This record gives sequence, structure tokens and C-alpha cells, in this order.
Amino acid sequence: MTGVLRPGHCSLRVLDLEAALKHYTEVVGLIETDRDDNGRVYLKAWDEQDHHSIILRQADIPGSDYIAFKVDNKATLERLAKAIASFGCKVDYIPAGELKATGERIRFEIPTGHHVELYAEKKKAGNGMGDVNPAPWPDGLKGMQPTRMDHWQVHGVDLDGSVELFTKVLGFGLSERVLDGDRLMAAFLTCSTKPHDIAFIRDEEQQDRFHHVAFYLNSWEEVLRAADIISKKNVSLDIGPTRHGITRGQTIYFFDPSGNRNEVFSGGYIYYPDSPTLTWTMEELGRAIFYHIRELNERFMTVMT
Amino acid sequence: MTGVLRPGHCSLRVLDLEAALKHYTEVVGLIETDRDDNGRVYLKAWDEQDHHSIILRQADIPGSDYIAFKVDNKATLERLAKAIASFGCKVDYIPAGELKATGERIRFEIPTGHHVELYAEKKKAGNGMGDVNPAPWPDGLKGMQPTRMDHWQVHGVDLDGSVELFTKVLGFGLSERVLDGDRLMAAFLTCSTKPHDIAFIRDEEQQDRFHHVAFYLNSWEEVLRAADIISKKNVSLDIGPTRHGITRGQTIYFFDPSGNRNEVFSGGYIYYPDSPTLTWTMEELGRAIFYHIRELNERFMTVMT
Amino acid sequence: MTGVLRPGHCSLRVLDLEAALKHYTEVVGLIETDRDDNGRVYLKAWDEQDHHSIILRQADIPGSDYIAFKVDNKATLERLAKAIASFGCKVDYIPAGELKATGERIRFEIPTGHHVELYAEKKKAGNGMGDVNPAPWPDGLKGMQPTRMDHWQVHGVDLDGSVELFTKVLGFGLSERVLDGDRLMAAFLTCSTKPHDIAFIRDEEQQDRFHHVAFYLNSWEEVLRAADIISKKNVSLDIGPTRHGITRGQTIYFFDPSGNRNEVFSGGYIYYPDSPTLTWTMEELGRAIFYHIRELNERFMTVMT
Amino acid sequence: MTGVLRPGHCSLRVLDLEAALKHYTEVVGLIETDRDDNGRVYLKAWDEQDHHSIILRQADIPGSDYIAFKVDNKATLERLAKAIASFGCKVDYIPAGELKATGERIRFEIPTGHHVELYAEKKKAGNGMGDVNPAPWPDGLKGMQPTRMDHWQVHGVDLDGSVELFTKVLGFGLSERVLDGDRLMAAFLTCSTKPHDIAFIRDEEQQDRFHHVAFYLNSWEEVLRAADIISKKNVSLDIGPTRHGITRGQTIYFFDPSGNRNEVFSGGYIYYPDSPTLTWTMEELGRAIFYHIRELNERFMTVMT
Repeated sequence: MTGVLRPGHCSLRVLDLEAALKHYTEVVGLIETDRDDNGRVYLKAWDEQDHHSIILRQADIPGSDYIAFKVDNKATLERLAKAIASFGCKVDYIPAGELKATGERIRFEIPTGHHVELYAEKKKAGNGMGDVNPAPWPDGLKGMQPTRMDHWQVHGVDLDGSVELFTKVLGFGLSERVLDGDRLMAAFLTCSTKPHDIAFIRDEEQQDRFHHVAFYLNSWEEVLRAADIISKKNVSLDIGPTRHGITRGQTIYFFDPSGNRNEVFSGGYIYYPDSPTLTWTMEELGRAIFYHIRELNERFMTVMT
Repeated sequence: MTGVLRPGHCSLRVLDLEAALKHYTEVVGLIETDRDDNGRVYLKAWDEQDHHSIILRQADIPGSDYIAFKVDNKATLERLAKAIASFGCKVDYIPAGELKATGERIRFEIPTGHHVELYAEKKKAGNGMGDVNPAPWPDGLKGMQPTRMDHWQVHGVDLDGSVELFTKVLGFGLSERVLDGDRLMAAFLTCSTKPHDIAFIRDEEQQDRFHHVAFYLNSWEEVLRAADIISKKNVSLDIGPTRHGITRGQTIYFFDPSGNRNEVFSGGYIYYPDSPTLTWTMEELGRAIFYHIRELNERFMTVMT
Repeated sequence: MTGVLRPGHCSLRVLDLEAALKHYTEVVGLIETDRDDNGRVYLKAWDEQDHHSIILRQADIPGSDYIAFKVDNKATLERLAKAIASFGCKVDYIPAGELKATGERIRFEIPTGHHVELYAEKKKAGNGMGDVNPAPWPDGLKGMQPTRMDHWQVHGVDLDGSVELFTKVLGFGLSERVLDGDRLMAAFLTCSTKPHDIAFIRDEEQQDRFHHVAFYLNSWEEVLRAADIISKKNVSLDIGPTRHGITRGQTIYFFDPSGNRNEVFSGGYIYYPDSPTLTWTMEELGRAIFYHIRELNERFMTVMT
Repeated sequence: MTGVLRPGHCSLRVLDLEAALKHYTEVVGLIETDRDDNGRVYLKAWDEQDHHSIILRQADIPGSDYIAFKVDNKATLERLAKAIASFGCKVDYIPAGELKATGERIRFEIPTGHHVELYAEKKKAGNGMGDVNPAPWPDGLKGMQPTRMDHWQVHGVDLDGSVELFTKVLGFGLSERVLDGDRLMAAFLTCSTKPHDIAFIRDEEQQDRFHHVAFYLNSWEEVLRAADIISKKNVSLDIGPTRHGITRGQTIYFFDPSGNRNEVFSGGYIYYPDSPTLTWTMEELGRAIFYHIRELNERFMTVMT
């Protein structure tokens, strides 16, 4: 492995910060950890140790400004910065402290047009249970109570380019893919033993599209509870509860008040570097995405931010 | 209570008996217990004690010939026969043995056009674990492994008539209902502490329509497993997994090879005679039926057998 | 059925009312509904409609003063009062209002020495979701979040007498029993389709012993959550999580601060009047009580209040 | 990471091969994949891709001959062989083919006296669903249906030595530990994002003791099912179902017919290299091991093979 640890944070643009905050704390169940002078609000899921994983920013259009992966140390950050530049992406350095509690970040635009960051340092906030004789879960949780921000799905034209960057430069594994004949339509990439840490989907027309940010739940019963909360709180449901063929995850999708898609899910399998890449064909694309209904819905395929 | 115990059996018409048998044994997971000289096949769910709950009959059109409730004894059967006749339904007697292992039945057409039976006696087949030091579940189960046939949903024009018969003559309780202003659109009726043993829905045009037969699962995780089986075996899915607002049940709907709708579900609450009747209004009808998606689908509302 | 609806309430004696209240509201997760001039506190589980099911009373010794079943109406109450008196129990009348929100009760001492009440009327408090377009569960629940008080287990010398009273006079069904040769050692009795509403166990020496009050959970996952809460809150655990052979229920037992045993459990099967009585023999008594460990523990068999 | 992928296989000594085979296939639910001329039987869990993870060998005393980790390639194998030798362990080479379908292995005795192997190559057997459009789970599974062999727990005197070898030479992370004052009593080590891939426990007297081999289940409901199977098949139960404080896993322990301890479990959290090491103190050791009962049992602490 090349030292990329995990999805670390992403900035979400929201049209109404208070409505968004209410959604991400009371519906999703993240915990607000900080605010900054730019009006940004920092949030984390309960079992994350680091200071934040979601940054909310008020804006005129929804979407994600950037997604960021944490790497294991500054040497890795420096090494990857050079490799990314050699790959052909311009690499910018963002000084420590631009985001609260966060060290220096590098930012680069990947072939699908998304802004991706790497960083090595973020202050710990802890998971609320301490490091000595911890309980299995903390009291006082709200909403869906995800344990972590888990992954993102993003779409863009130059799918092959982004996949090449992530696999050859950043060292991600290709756990699953969708092929249309020989043409790669979707790639599920992992820097860990999770079935995916990021998913790239081919878009025939547009770059830099954001499909969803996903949070992890502990069980299928928690997916049901999330589904109930979605309805009780009149949140806009996209689809679910159901299972994905890809990753085997049990899932439900919904929208924040600004139209950004969220997923909460559980399950999946353990991916190892020697695991076979699983391939889905276009005839079974419905089953790949929504294993039970076996058909795609227009909204899921076209609505993005 | 007036002595009606539970939904006891129903006759399902199927277009291809072998395909149906494969569906009800390998997909649903019922157990074949008998066949008769008329070519009918008898099935039961594993935790049912009586000889059968489903009777499959080859026919040119799908649907249900009759649904039957077991009553507690022959005196109740005789008493209810008279009461039903007084209510205005013609009551026919079907001799013991016409269905295998089954005592005398009375049959009558209810105001919504359905043929309903009552009977007091059926031979026991047991639940496979005996009555002494039983295990909690038997080995060798297949498919979705429901414990019981649970209820039916049927549609017809004279909803008020059938509801009056079931509540005033047969002693059922009205656990939930859908009202369009003052007009009753759907009635969920129970002869037990289950939230429903039969559901009647108003049809503006047609009598004697059969919407689904439901089987009971032990958990939401078993609903997921049923959903997976539906896809693995290429069974036609209707909708789910999801939750009902009405009854709170966790559910999935699908079709047998002849087009008869099946449901498997878990959960629900305990209904008592002093429980309030829950009322759903037309504005919330989507939530009443499919709590998460909060909208009805055309197929669910119109496809019947 | 003879008109006995369900376990309706019981009075628990506690040594420290505030500690008990904290236990029953924050650990078990009942809701305080009222207090009275005698210092009694009234509680209910969230999905119960009636005003209360648990009454806490400060006292010098723990235990239960009386257990009460609700009947369907005053005529049933009067009819059963006479039948109980004919059976040989002295029947006392307790006027409406002695317990808050509760109509007239009859109280009698059963052969095992326990004080049992019947009543027909109690004011509704509702389940927090109203009767029109209700959500499947309310917000703001605490602790283990049981839906209902479910049953009691009590011990006494004249087991045969109490079983005769409950089956022949009160109309309960015998769902399961433990036999030592021909001698009845335990009887699981139901007035509904639940596998038991009360359990009687033979005690060779003492009358009027209270083993536990049980509350119902919706799933095995909620049993795990209850187990976690027991440990997080340093509650005294008795045994579990495990499964019972008898009733098939998934269970955990623990003690309130005064030493009264509580159970929370899920699962079980549907009992009908024509279900066979299941019999457990002494060789399999361990499996009957704790299906996995297959052995009894001294504390479970001897510690009572 | 240093290239150690995961626990790959272990050899279990069993007193009666046929009884053991019946246990591991019908109770645990592993799949027999091969036998060899030495009478050894090869087994795998369903979701493992490689040819085998368990090797059964008839012997006079139970226990484990060796435990083996798979590394990512032959270069890693060679690099680690040298590093292990430099650490002071004698390294033996076992030629490819000594175990069926398995490439060259290196074997060394670690400070706690256990024989540990590394290897880079093993033939794939697949998980029964193919690599194109796979179903989420295969048909025909038996018993507890674990997805993988997950980890081992082993005991020995020189705990510090083995922990040093695994952390400094093999690159494992220390996810959790038990301290008696400053003295390390137990170490939970991971080469992945699982909370542990191997656990070492201090034994004050004996080296090379084998506590258990663990298999992974998908849910707490599957732990219940495993518990039921243990009782239905009269398998010797050790303890559970319960939760561990350490790793948060939901677990049950039992014995194979030769007395080797097995665990099946689900849950746990994601460990990253920057996760804090969690520390358990001796006062909370009961809670660390069995979170609900909060006390150790003699059998669990002393019975090993």
C-alpha cells in the first residue's frame, strides 16, 4: 500500500446552512465539532477520531468543493505530491490551518474534473469514549448514528484518466467495475480492505459531478431505522432500503435540503489486494446497482450536484 | 371473541402447477404435505401445525378460489353458519374430506364477491419438532422459510358490506382503516392480536379481486434474505424491502409464476380489543402503504388476480 | 376466550424510589405518567395505550404487591368475580380511583399465594403517536425502549391450584409445561396468542414468590442493545443474552436496584387454542430455560423477591 | 504496511478426523476442498478465494501445528524471511506443494513458542459465485456459514517478544492491549483494518498454547443462529452469545470434538494505523473480555490446546 489511509473529509456546498446543519446533525446524526471565521461548520461521525470529516459551506449552488484523503505521514504526502505532478496534474499546496485542526494539504484536479486533496495531519477529537476501557458506543447519539464517513461516488468524462491516477499513482485497488463491452463505465476503488473508498462513474458529457457521500451503519436494522427517520422527518428519499450487487452493501439514499445526495449503508465484504476484480456487464447493470429491483431509476442516474 | 381462530387455508389457481410448486417450495419455502385425485397440491409453512394452508390448483386464470378461516369448534361453526345466513349470505356445506385432512366446511359469498369458508377441523401435521423438548426451528428448511401463512388482502365494490359481515357477524376487530373524508376506502381486520388477519380494499368497479397472500417471517434480516432470494431466483419483484405505515410491518411483495401476488413480512404490533382503530387519511395514503417511499405505485394498486 | 385481555399492571416494591425510578425510566426506558398522594409513581412502556403498567412503591422489602389483568368489560369482571369466588378464593373489591386512572378492581389471593387483580377500565394515555396517520415509533425514547410490559413469572407451593384457577376459571391456555415424571413443575399460560402471559413455577417451600416482570423488545438486535446498556449503566446482570427453549424467546435478565428481576426479550411464536401444549422433561430442563448453555444457574432458580 | 495480507491457514490436530470433519463442515459450515496423501483434509469458508484456510490432521493430542499468514508477493516473503532471521528466529523453508495448492512457505518459531508461517502463493478456489455479475451469497451453504477464517488467539510466556516481532518486523498495528500496571498482559494485533488478525495473551507458565481460531459472521442474528446450531447439534458451548469489550465484536465460543476452541463472531470497528491503541486495565478485564457479564470464567482462561 502506498500510504493513503482513507477518505478524510469533503466540503459540501449547501444553500441554507442552518437547514443543512439540522439535516446533518439531527437526521444523519453527525456531531458538530467546530466553526470557523469563514462561516464553515465542521462535523464528524461518532466513531471517527479526527476533528472532522464533513465541512459545510453556504453557497449558491450545491455540490462538493473537494474531497480529501488522509495519508499516513508527511513523507508520503511529499512523495505522492511529486508522483501526482509527474502524472500531469498541477499540485497546489494549502497551508496548515486553512481548515481548522488540519495540517498542510495538497490539492489537484483529477482527470474527471474533481478537486482532490491529500493531507497527513489532523487533530484528534476522539470518539467520545476515551482510549481506556471504552464502552462499545457512546450515549447521546442522534439520528441515523453512522460510525464514519465512508466513501464518495463521483462522475466525469475522463473516467480512464482518474482510474489510472488512483490505481497507478495513489495505489488504490480495483475491487469492482462495470464494462460495456471492453469499455470501462464504472470503477470501484479501495485504499483499504473496504470494498470501496471511492467510486468513479463515466459521464458522457459533464466533468466534476458529485453523486453522493456515504456514511457507514452497523447493521441492516440500522438501515431500516434510517429509512424510518427519513420518512418521519420528511427527508427526500431517493431509493432504498435495498442491497447493492456491487459491494453487497445494504443501503438507502436520500437528499440533504440542498439536493446533495447522501447514502447510509452497512455490510460489504473484505477486499484484499489479491481479491479478484469483480466485473458487471451492462445486461446486469440494474442488478449491480440495485440488487433487488434490478432496474435503474432515472433520478439515481442523472441527478447530481 | 367469537371463535374464529385464524386464516386457515386458501386455494390458489396457477397456470403451471409444476412451476408454481417450485415457486412455493423453493422460493417461498413451503412444505408439500399432500396431493389429491383432483390434482391439487397441499402445502404448509413450517411452523403451522395443521395439514395445509395453501392449496394449489391448475387453472386457466390465476387467482384464489376461496379463503378459509379455522374456527375453534363445530358448535361455533354451526352458530356462525346461522348468523351468516341471517346476515343474508347463502351458506353452502362442503362435506368433510372434499379437501384432504379437512372436516366439514361452510362456504359463502361475501358482499365484495369473495368466497369465504369456515371449518373447525383439520388433521395435524406438526411443525417438524414434536411436542416434547422441541428445538426452536427445524433443520432442512428451504427458501424464505416463513413460519405461517398470515393474512390476505382482497378488493371489491361493496367494502362496507364485507366489513359489516366480518365485524358484526364474525367478530373481527377493526385495527386500521383508510378514510376518504367519511368514506371507508380500506379496512384492516383482525380475529386475533395480530394487526390484521384480512384486509379489505374498496374497488370502484370490480368484485372478487385477490391482491395478495402473506406469509410471516421472524425478522427484518429475513426480509433482506427473501429479497436476495427473489433476485437470485429471478422472481418478479413488486416492491420492497420496505415498511408499511399500516401495521408497521416490514415487507416485500413479489409474484408467483402465474401472477398471484405474494408478500412476506415481519414485525407489526399487538392488537387488543381495546386498542384504538388507527385512521389513515388520503393525503397520507402513500405513507400508509409504503412508509419510506411515501407514494403508491400503479402496479401495486391495479394488478390483481 | 373468557374476556381476559392481558397483563395490565403490577405494583413493584422498591427500597429507594428515586433509584428505582432512574432504573425504570433510564435503563428500562419506561415513561413516567403520574404520581399519587401515596407516593406511588406510575409508568408505562411506550406502545401501551393505557395510563400505566408499572406502579413503583417505596417499601422495606422488594417484590410485587399484586399483578393485574385487564378484562374486556365490566360484565366480564362481574362474571369472573363470581367464578373466582366459586373456585374458593375470597374476592375483594377495590374502588375506582384507588389507583390513578383505574376503574374498580377485584383482588384475590391465588393458591400460590400471589395477589391477583382484574379490572375493566383504565384511562388511555396513548402511545405518543396519535390515532391518525401514526409514525411507526415515537421520538425521544430512552434506555431499552420496550414496547410493552409482557408477562410475569411467579413461584409458589400450590402450583396445581393456580394453574387450575387460570385455565378453568380465567380461561387461559397451557402453551408449555415442565413435567417431572407426571408431576407438573412449571406452567406457561396465555390469555392471548402470545406464548405466555404468565408463568407459574413450583416452589417446594415458599408461597407468593416473584421471579420477574418481563418487557417486550422488537428484535434480537434490541436485546444486544439492552445488554450493552446493562453493562454501560453498571446494572446487575442475571443472565443473557440467550434464547429460551420454552417460548423460543430471545432474552436477557437483570435486576433493578432493589433486587427485583427484570427481563427484556423478543421473539416467540403465535399460540392458538388448538396449538399443542409443549412439554419439557427434567433431563432437558436446562435447554428449556436457557437453550444455548443448557444448564440452570443457582441464582436464576433461587433468587426471588 | 509491510505486505502481510491476512491469516491464511492453520493446521488443526484432531483426535478423530471424521468427527472433526463433520463438525467443521456441518456445524461451522466450512467447505471441504481437498485431501492429500498424508490424510490431511483441506477446508475453506465460503467467501475465501484461496484453496483452503483450515487443514485438519489426525493426531494424538489436539491443538494447532502452525498458523500462517499470506503475504502479497514473493519479494515480501524473501524480505520478511531475512528480517525474521535478523530478529533471531530460525527460519525454515517448506517447499511448494508440501501443502496442496500452496507455494513455498517459511516457518519460524516465535518467542511465545508458536510455529508461524508466511507464504505468498496459493491457488484460487473461488467463492462459488464467479467474478462476473456475482450474487451476494451462494446457495447450498450449511451450518453457521462464516464468510472467513478471521484470526487466532494464542498464549505464551514471552509475550513481549512475540509482540515485538509482530509489530517491529511484520509491521502489525497494536489495536488494543491489556495492562497490569505497566506490564503487558494481552496484545491485539492487526495487519489490516480489522480490529485484530491475531491476539497474544501472556501465559505465566506455558509456551505454545492455542486458545481459539475464529470465523467471521455477517450479523448478530447469525450469532444467534450459530448459538442455536450449537445446541441443536449438542456441540460443547464455551460462552456466548455476548459482546467483547475488546474489538466490540459479537461472539460465541464453542469446542470442536477434539477440544479445540472455535469462535464465530460479527461486528467490530475499522482500525487505521493512526487509530489510538485502546488500553484495558485489570480492574475492567472482565468487561474487556465479556462485556455483558463483566467477569471471566475459569474455563475460558485456562482451557487451551
